[in-house]
Amino acid sequence: MIIAMQAESTTEEIDNVCQRIRDFGYMPHVIRGEERTVIAAIGHGDKKEHIEQLKSLNGVENAFPILQPFKLVSREVKKQKSEIRVGDIKIGDGGFVVMAGPCSVEGREQIMATAEAVAESGARILRGGAYKPRTSPYDFQGLAEEGLKLLAEARERTGLKIITEVLDTEDVEIVREYADILQVGARNMQNFALLKRLGEVNKPIMLKRGLSATIKEFLLSAEYIVTHGNHEVILCERGIRTFETATRNTLDLAAVPLLNELTHLPVIVDPSHGTGKRSLVRPLARAAVAVGGDGLMTEVHPCPEEAWSDGPQSLRPDEFALLMKEIEPYVNLRQGFVS
Amino acid sequence: MIIAMQAESTTEEIDNVCQRIRDFGYMPHVIRGEERTVIAAIGHGDKKEHIEQLKSLNGVENAFPILQPFKLVSREVKKQKSEIRVGDIKIGDGGFVVMAGPCSVEGREQIMATAEAVAESGARILRGGAYKPRTSPYDFQGLAEEGLKLLAEARERTGLKIITEVLDTEDVEIVREYADILQVGARNMQNFALLKRLGEVNKPIMLKRGLSATIKEFLLSAEYIVTHGNHEVILCERGIRTFETATRNTLDLAAVPLLNELTHLPVIVDPSHGTGKRSLVRPLARAAVAVGGDGLMTEVHPCPEEAWSDGPQSLRPDEFALLMKEIEPYVNLRQGFVS
Amino acid sequence: MIIAMQAESTTEEIDNVCQRIRDFGYMPHVIRGEERTVIAAIGHGDKKEHIEQLKSLNGVENAFPILQPFKLVSREVKKQKSEIRVGDIKIGDGGFVVMAGPCSVEGREQIMATAEAVAESGARILRGGAYKPRTSPYDFQGLAEEGLKLLAEARERTGLKIITEVLDTEDVEIVREYADILQVGARNMQNFALLKRLGEVNKPIMLKRGLSATIKEFLLSAEYIVTHGNHEVILCERGIRTFETATRNTLDLAAVPLLNELTHLPVIVDPSHGTGKRSLVRPLARAAVAVGGDGLMTEVHPCPEEAWSDGPQSLRPDEFALLMKEIEPYVNLRQGFVS
Amino acid sequence: MIIAMQAESTTEEIDNVCQRIRDFGYMPHVIRGEERTVIAAIGHGDKKEHIEQLKSLNGVENAFPILQPFKLVSREVKKQKSEIRVGDIKIGDGGFVVMAGPCSVEGREQIMATAEAVAESGARILRGGAYKPRTSPYDFQGLAEEGLKLLAEARERTGLKIITEVLDTEDVEIVREYADILQVGARNMQNFALLKRLGEVNKPIMLKRGLSATIKEFLLSAEYIVTHGNHEVILCERGIRTFETATRNTLDLAAVPLLNELTHLPVIVDPSHGTGKRSLVRPLARAAVAVGGDGLMTEVHPCPEEAWSDGPQSLRPDEFALLMKEIEPYVNLRQGFVS
Repeated sequence: MIIAMQAESTTEEIDNVCQRIRDFGYMPHVIRGEERTVIAAIGHGDKKEHIEQLKSLNGVENAFPILQPFKLVSREVKKQKSEIRVGDIKIGDGGFVVMAGPCSVEGREQIMATAEAVAESGARILRGGAYKPRTSPYDFQGLAEEGLKLLAEARERTGLKIITEVLDTEDVEIVREYADILQVGARNMQNFALLKRLGEVNKPIMLKRGLSATIKEFLLSAEYIVTHGNHEVILCERGIRTFETATRNTLDLAAVPLLNELTHLPVIVDPSHGTGKRSLVRPLARAAVAVGGDGLMTEVHPCPEEAWSDGPQSLRPDEFALLMKEIEPYVNLRQGFVS
Repeated sequence: MIIAMQAESTTEEIDNVCQRIRDFGYMPHVIRGEERTVIAAIGHGDKKEHIEQLKSLNGVENAFPILQPFKLVSREVKKQKSEIRVGDIKIGDGGFVVMAGPCSVEGREQIMATAEAVAESGARILRGGAYKPRTSPYDFQGLAEEGLKLLAEARERTGLKIITEVLDTEDVEIVREYADILQVGARNMQNFALLKRLGEVNKPIMLKRGLSATIKEFLLSAEYIVTHGNHEVILCERGIRTFETATRNTLDLAAVPLLNELTHLPVIVDPSHGTGKRSLVRPLARAAVAVGGDGLMTEVHPCPEEAWSDGPQSLRPDEFALLMKEIEPYVNLRQGFVS
Repeated sequence: MIIAMQAESTTEEIDNVCQRIRDFGYMPHVIRGEERTVIAAIGHGDKKEHIEQLKSLNGVENAFPILQPFKLVSREVKKQKSEIRVGDIKIGDGGFVVMAGPCSVEGREQIMATAEAVAESGARILRGGAYKPRTSPYDFQGLAEEGLKLLAEARERTGLKIITEVLDTEDVEIVREYADILQVGARNMQNFALLKRLGEVNKPIMLKRGLSATIKEFLLSAEYIVTHGNHEVILCERGIRTFETATRNTLDLAAVPLLNELTHLPVIVDPSHGTGKRSLVRPLARAAVAVGGDGLMTEVHPCPEEAWSDGPQSLRPDEFALLMKEIEPYVNLRQGFVS
Repeated sequence: MIIAMQAESTTEEIDNVCQRIRDFGYMPHVIRGEERTVIAAIGHGDKKEHIEQLKSLNGVENAFPILQPFKLVSREVKKQKSEIRVGDIKIGDGGFVVMAGPCSVEGREQIMATAEAVAESGARILRGGAYKPRTSPYDFQGLAEEGLKLLAEARERTGLKIITEVLDTEDVEIVREYADILQVGARNMQNFALLKRLGEVNKPIMLKRGLSATIKEFLLSAEYIVTHGNHEVILCERGIRTFETATRNTLDLAAVPLLNELTHLPVIVDPSHGTGKRSLVRPLARAAVAVGGDGLMTEVHPCPEEAWSDGPQSLRPDEFALLMKEIEPYVNLRQGFVS
């Protein structure tokens, strides 16, 4: 890490900083500039704790790390892209996997109709919420285990794999029983108790980026799951919160190639939450393929005007079929540039 | 709620929207403007589900609520400010309560030294984390129950009440046993499973505003706790995430008088997390009194340069003593304007 | 517009609001709900001035417009997409026009080398700054008229058209003399004096979105140019400022299809400023085609490690050639979905 | 500056970076860590151009400055706070100066009534816009020179000094003739042509922080004015744009003590634009004193419900009188902590 001293720092203060650096197990290198002194601390780690303690010493203006704080998820540690297997589906192998379904499981008829429609159009994985994180306590909170059973039934009937959200450590066990992929929602991206528990699960986890999470924080949350034992992590870019109110969120598509540089984990794009507007989902789905994403998650409802949640961003089955047809040539094109 | 039709919407589409409005139990009022038709739906609720479903109908451009989505926490429902009692301390009675202590409980010596120092300077409540939400899995995660016991011992010794964070539903029971106030951290503000469980606890909850939470979402999270049975909720403004990187967060002091208009719940200000910089804590503490806050939460460490977390924003005991001395005349002044 | 009265508003207050609405030339419709009264004001305009004045009346809780504030640039006023002609180039006709060149014109050799390289790879328009908006007064401020002359010489030599930025009303005349398209930079998007002057110019204007400009504000700035007489406006999405620091800005690709819904003006994407990172430019360029953009602006420098500005986001000529090759099949694909 | 090499950088790449550093006139210090090599470049400057060029070299992962980019406005260069004199008023001498008046000058009666009211309550400086930056071309654009004349007449009558905004280089001369302080609005904070021209003016300039300007950018804009010859610069915090929509902007009060650490220029707070809501202005004004501001700018209108702009955030004269009475004891208290 690098420690910048204040312009008027004393020799004693500099010596004191060097001593602390040695105590932490790093080697200090003092570089005396014309305007201020800078100290480089060489060694393993760049631990946040050390940086913060150094920042609090007299004479120190600032201290910052050089090394990235994530390890196991980084490309430096593992050059090759991770392929996550879900039955015979591979995510991260250069192909493009589509997950589709309603925001919430509302009942048998709704989920079966959706599952059949999306399967027919080429989706491989069915999404659907049984436990719902809702901003207001007055909104529909999900069918819970009943919803999970309906998803399992839809899987049975269509051959689709299923992904569904888990909200709390206490529900991990039951969701794990039914789901093929367990999803962590944006609002739980830094629910560290949940992440640790999911590190002990032997099924893939899809981690959605938090509304105000930086790329670094996103990867550190993935690192939580991996350090606790589960290497099967899929990332999902679903838009971040900005000042713009014309869309529900701002879909950060640059995050996809950036994540591809920084991590070996696959990256899925969710243009439904990313925009909140049905008419924008198809163009952004095409862009998600073009930008190098490993797949798509999108909301589909047989009748959005009767959906109990997220209707305005849900595609009708025929719109979803059109999306699948539209992205197909884009997926074919990718052979040229994905390496 | 209000439904704005598209400029080119047809009579049939308008009739269809009116029918749906009636089905939901509202009365539609059609207002034909020169450029477009607007429909007002009158009735209880303005339910999000209804708004979303209407938005999905053909011919509808937009739909939005008129009524605020929170009820029990709102000033419209309860005009009088809530006073939360913690032993003989009242929060929300027009006075100004100070909560101080280290970010993390690190050991007996550290917490006792801090507790005694802050008690002597006039703090009433000791803060200290036993379960720590840390961005990186490699950072110190807290002493867990051992930390709670040390907090209880410090309470015993100093007479201070204690506030400490609970991270997960599974820890609610044990934290409740020890703490006088249970804190929900910013990253858990929308951990709805946790909020529901805390609604069943018979102790006060301090809910911190999420990093990217709007005031409306903040109040809806409080509403979760209240609708599940616990009316003893304290709000805490602790800074929001913006583009500015010179401070750790942007402390939104306007939120304090705004919350005072919208809700009867008391509001605490945390300038330590709000700024992330020791030298800014005192000026912002003075401002927190002046703006009408019900109290302060601030980090104090006997030796910030050895703190395991948050050293750069922690005050030394003598700085905290100075803060308390500085805010005293401001607190006295408030008799003039707080009503 | 819609005026929501406070829950406890009186009949007198409601009458007063209605009178003001009539004075402004609208028709008031009073809708008495169970919890509060709402008044719809019908008529041309929804003027901001009227909304603000109504908001200030006793008993009014909120007032907001139904109509979009922009007119001439809106799709409602003109259904057909505008085609902007620059010599024999058309922007907005369904094709995809590429503008490329260095951040700053640094000298004859540099601009000629770049112009020839980008022309050879298929760019149609040369970009290059002669007047540079720089955050610091100590940074290079541009070659001014000398830079314009070099651009003109490069046009002469290569047949490329040229686009260059104008910073100030006083420079409009001279920039207009040389440029084929005048660019308004992000920091000047709300320099209204400049926008008005550009409304009197008989050449196309490319208006870049401000760092913190909403889509609505962006379109209102375009409206300034159009209402002052110049209909030849091209919009450019170049990233907005968010909390994320891993990229220079957050490129808002959803803005492209959203603008296509709201306005008839063509939309260009600038992934160089949008990401600030050379390695992200190509993937985002592909996405810009896929999402439905009308063209691309990208920075190219013969030797980025010697560029006087924006080196880290500038492509080398061979990288630009690769970009052009990569986007070609995407451009061809668009026949299928652009309508 | 500090250059971090990629983990796999070669000796040749490191040598090349060192050579470039020497070419730029710095001394390179190579520090070989266990995971990567870091190079410190010692010397005057940390020029952005150099940092960007180094970033573009092969093998370089990142490069960043140690030194602050602003010089003349920094506290390191001038320890003593600057006092700006406007007639017999001093801004920055530890006192608290209040600037008040309408958003726009609308006519003689309005500006005279306001001037007399605010003077009577204790304001020293009258604000009022003659040239108005308006988001929409359809909004009132100001009375221009007629407005300036009315301001001068109000000055004559009340003894108040006047501050008014200048929008464009072409208007600098005429505004300078009438105004005592020239204001640069938030939307023009990076209108560099305007800043340079104001550097040649012999009157104080009040520079408002841009909607999405970092503290560093804010100070660099002030540096533009100072490097062009005018040292009389006053800064104004007026709120930044965030995701929160309940207030017009988010007033960043932490910026006040932070600016006091970084610069010797005085800092004014504008809670009217900072919140956009009349009821929040008084609490934030108190906080502005408590946090250490050098003064206040606030909007006052004799009849906000008839104001042509900014009515919802304008105080009535009696509310302004109350504000002045309320802040008085806070101003008196400051003797204790302002140094």
